[in-house]
Amino acid sequence: MSMIPDSEYVERVKRVQEEMILRDIDLLVGYGSESEPHHVRYLSDFIPNFDFAGFIVPREGEAALITGGPESIVYAKATSRLKRIFIHPFFLETSAPPYHETEHIRFKDIIPEAAGGLGRIRRVGIVGSNIFPYAIYQDLKRAVGDAEIVEADDILFKVRMIKSPNELNVIRRAYRITEQCHREALDYAEPGRMEWEVEAKAKSVMAMLGAEGPAYPIWVCSGPRTNQGLSRSTDRKIGRGELVQLSIGVKYQGYCGNMCRPFVIGEVPGKARRLMEAGLEAENAVIDAMEPGVESIQVHRVFERILRKHGFGREFTLYGPAHGTGLQECEGPWINEESRFKLQPGMVFNVDIWLSDGELGLRWEDGVAVTEDGVEQLSTYRREIISK
Amino acid sequence: MSMIPDSEYVERVKRVQEEMILRDIDLLVGYGSESEPHHVRYLSDFIPNFDFAGFIVPREGEAALITGGPESIVYAKATSRLKRIFIHPFFLETSAPPYHETEHIRFKDIIPEAAGGLGRIRRVGIVGSNIFPYAIYQDLKRAVGDAEIVEADDILFKVRMIKSPNELNVIRRAYRITEQCHREALDYAEPGRMEWEVEAKAKSVMAMLGAEGPAYPIWVCSGPRTNQGLSRSTDRKIGRGELVQLSIGVKYQGYCGNMCRPFVIGEVPGKARRLMEAGLEAENAVIDAMEPGVESIQVHRVFERILRKHGFGREFTLYGPAHGTGLQECEGPWINEESRFKLQPGMVFNVDIWLSDGELGLRWEDGVAVTEDGVEQLSTYRREIISK
Repeated sequence: MSMIPDSEYVERVKRVQEEMILRDIDLLVGYGSESEPHHVRYLSDFIPNFDFAGFIVPREGEAALITGGPESIVYAKATSRLKRIFIHPFFLETSAPPYHETEHIRFKDIIPEAAGGLGRIRRVGIVGSNIFPYAIYQDLKRAVGDAEIVEADDILFKVRMIKSPNELNVIRRAYRITEQCHREALDYAEPGRMEWEVEAKAKSVMAMLGAEGPAYPIWVCSGPRTNQGLSRSTDRKIGRGELVQLSIGVKYQGYCGNMCRPFVIGEVPGKARRLMEAGLEAENAVIDAMEPGVESIQVHRVFERILRKHGFGREFTLYGPAHGTGLQECEGPWINEESRFKLQPGMVFNVDIWLSDGELGLRWEDGVAVTEDGVEQLSTYRREIISK
Repeated sequence: MSMIPDSEYVERVKRVQEEMILRDIDLLVGYGSESEPHHVRYLSDFIPNFDFAGFIVPREGEAALITGGPESIVYAKATSRLKRIFIHPFFLETSAPPYHETEHIRFKDIIPEAAGGLGRIRRVGIVGSNIFPYAIYQDLKRAVGDAEIVEADDILFKVRMIKSPNELNVIRRAYRITEQCHREALDYAEPGRMEWEVEAKAKSVMAMLGAEGPAYPIWVCSGPRTNQGLSRSTDRKIGRGELVQLSIGVKYQGYCGNMCRPFVIGEVPGKARRLMEAGLEAENAVIDAMEPGVESIQVHRVFERILRKHGFGREFTLYGPAHGTGLQECEGPWINEESRFKLQPGMVFNVDIWLSDGELGLRWEDGVAVTEDGVEQLSTYRREIISK
């Protein structure tokens, strides 16, 4: 049972429309896929499956869902919070079956109905712009004629950035399940166990606790493979006395929880310990520095100071110490040397410390929600030098 | 441990290059994502994670992988079978962190190096054309100047269509795991159990047996929800004497297994039985009709004949009785009223019978590989009217 009521979806569309007016945008067209559903799901709760999905938000009035064809339409009617639904054959699955009745539908047919006429459309915003397919863009361009088309991802990012109490409840549950996955994965890890087996244990736990699945393609890597900041589990057997990295997060009702922990079975070797201690101190110090009203750059400077203290220059890391999280494990805003914003109640971050000396690498990661008077730590399980 | 050796990836690139010559294409550029990795994975074995990925195949010489940035590069070097790797910032994850050193790299810098100069490029094929992002297309267009850009998905579909003995071994294992998931999900289903709990049991089983994950966003639906041809599990409690649909498949080493089964706990009600019997008879008859050299339309006519016999017109179904499968659960070729091709050894199909009277729906689905002298059934578990 969804923890977010229909009324909140109505409110989301209204907030998007307010931003459209500020940006002088008449029509917003969004796009999403199975792996990039976030914007579409935020407005509709629809989960693309095989087919792709999108949305149309006019400056005033009802927003609509777009999906690919007859196979999605019954599913969309049953699950989308947006009750106005259009189909467009360019949103069909990659290996599209022939559905003759939809073949000739294009944006020129959809938009006048969705927007109450084409006459008023001077500026069209697209959302999901870095994945917006060429074919769909061209069809949109033909439909809107001389109207200007601009990238408008920032509208959705801005509206999504402050989480509602309902969203926070879902996110809290995502982190509870994530912590339980870490607990059981860590218990399950032993010398001779393969990386993928430990990942599998976590996936099994999250499924049985009601998660939709992992928050991203999660992994366990060990020994010399820990230098991969993104990775996939292999059949490498975990050894005693070597660094092992758990990168495990879950998606619960669309929202992500994520934690990363390095650990060692047996004694922690010197090189690994040096990275672990620096990362752990940075993780704690960054969380301590976060509170409403603080400038993001101040938080970043805390991170830099800890790295310097441990003798690690910027070549040991790749990005700033925290990023937003929600419907995506990693979403705006980023806290880094360039960002300039004040932390606000309702923002949720993953404090994400990646450190690598080129041979070994590790990531500490935990969830933090900014509250009215401080922060709420969403995950704390074994934030320590773990040697089992 | 991958069951497909490096040499087979070299061979795949060669076969693609042979098709490029036939189609007079000088350069092939492919694109993929976490949820649509198939073409990229076929040529590179690289699995996009957060960042997107692509490939460049010149008409002669070495193919290259493209991915998004510094975080993917160490991972790509460790896992890609294509050892030539380029980064392009338009392939960065949707919420891209700032990586200054890659900011100014574009196709104009990559292509001359990947293709051995721009002079010979007159025709460029794009693969993954229905998801090929507008921004990447525009950058490609700027880089190749006056060269013609054409859709060339058919090249990859053609090469991927005939599976090698190694691919068949991987696919067989995917179906073994899929059958075990169905066995345990069916055992686990009981009145009062929620749909998502039964799905979770299957996900837990597939993880522990070494699957990468589900082959697609799998689901269990029950009662009035079975009319959804695509769906997602909910917290609806399964009742006695009602239709329940298991749509469960796994991805193993990139390849898909899939089965669908309807079942009833207790006595099968008349309306459900009528659909189940027609679907089961069609499933068996279609499989019986498949052998090397048979025309696809003949297989389709068997399907139509069974539907007619049971009094179901074409409004009771949405598509033909089978589709190719492999790196995608659903890939070409389709067997339907329009397709005209001969079944060949090495083709692998899902026989996929979807039937709905609008109120109830069901899908029977099993894997079938065409052999030199018949077919190999990849899944057979309880292909019967299941009442437990």
